[in-house]
Amino acid sequence: MRSKFIVIEGLEGSGKTSARSLVIETLRGLGVTDIVETREPGGTALAEKLRSLILDLKATGDEVITAKAEVLMFYAARTQLVETVIKPALARGAWVVGDRHDLSTQAYQGGGRQIDPQMLSTLRDTVLGDFAPDLTLYLDVTPEVGLTRARARGALDRIEQESLDFFNRTRARYQALAAADSRIRTIDATQPLEQVGQQIRTLLINWVQEQA
Amino acid sequence: MRSKFIVIEGLEGSGKTSARSLVIETLRGLGVTDIVETREPGGTALAEKLRSLILDLKATGDEVITAKAEVLMFYAARTQLVETVIKPALARGAWVVGDRHDLSTQAYQGGGRQIDPQMLSTLRDTVLGDFAPDLTLYLDVTPEVGLTRARARGALDRIEQESLDFFNRTRARYQALAAADSRIRTIDATQPLEQVGQQIRTLLINWVQEQA
Repeated sequence: MRSKFIVIEGLEGSGKTSARSLVIETLRGLGVTDIVETREPGGTALAEKLRSLILDLKATGDEVITAKAEVLMFYAARTQLVETVIKPALARGAWVVGDRHDLSTQAYQGGGRQIDPQMLSTLRDTVLGDFAPDLTLYLDVTPEVGLTRARARGALDRIEQESLDFFNRTRARYQALAAADSRIRTIDATQPLEQVGQQIRTLLINWVQEQA
Repeated sequence: MRSKFIVIEGLEGSGKTSARSLVIETLRGLGVTDIVETREPGGTALAEKLRSLILDLKATGDEVITAKAEVLMFYAARTQLVETVIKPALARGAWVVGDRHDLSTQAYQGGGRQIDPQMLSTLRDTVLGDFAPDLTLYLDVTPEVGLTRARARGALDRIEQESLDFFNRTRARYQALAAADSRIRTIDATQPLEQVGQQIRTLLINWVQEQA
């Protein structure tokens, strides 16, 4: 079987970290040995520096980052990661499991920040071409549930400090994009952890078998 | 007279710094009192951080920056500067004198790095729309002359360390774009400093009078 790029998506506090561990454990159980983990923004020296600029208020002395500058930095970090880490890993036969990818930009910048959809799709096409994950697991939670969990973990970053309206728009965009693309599977992440895990495991095993 | 955005462009060692001082001195002589100076990439807290990532090899531990990531960082820095500094300055009636702007990206990334022209023009249109300098002074030198001067100043940055071929392509693109746009004026910067200065002064005074 050709190696695959699988992405975990969802709002803050949707359980992406647990889901990622479970995906990796399940893949290993299916005999996949070479697995590369990525996170976005980040995953290379340059992309991690961009991550700090994007997420850490102190990095730019509280300067307000314009929505356009933000989305361009996301794509700079993404193309660096895709070209220097993800594509080479897939080419050598490794599977790649990503914590966030382009769907986050579509949801957060397109939905949350309401960036012009034409600009966003032009940028995506220009930067990524037809490169896309083989499977995306979208963990759907309400912002109320997600943010409560995220707050319990500690201080919120620049984007986590946005308004409830911002996250409601982000979630609505996630849901709409998931409904329109069969490569994105939605998981109800407000269920108890045990059930979420069972659903991810079953979905992933079935999906891998379909690909064989 | 409406306030203007004037940009100085050219290869390393073409004399941009002296030209900028002269432009500002000449504008003051013409009665312009409120002048904002910018440099690119840079000019805001965020854009200066991006400048370090782009130009300082050590900032990313010698990671090779892909051409796409580089051009996206240039545009992130540029939109941040345009939206938070240049446009507000012009709106309040200040004149803006810039050390480099979008023409550098067209010449260095388009010519030098040979980035797909379609991608570059899409990015420019998407990010800048029809925002453009009122006047650009392009200081034309051969890379041999420019790099000799730049080296005499000290250590070269990441882009200054490119090959002679890179700078020949960059210069050829500068020349072609200058020939095609009446808002870009070419100055032969291999002439003695005195003559370059006289030419800039005369050109600028005539141009300002034409605008009145």
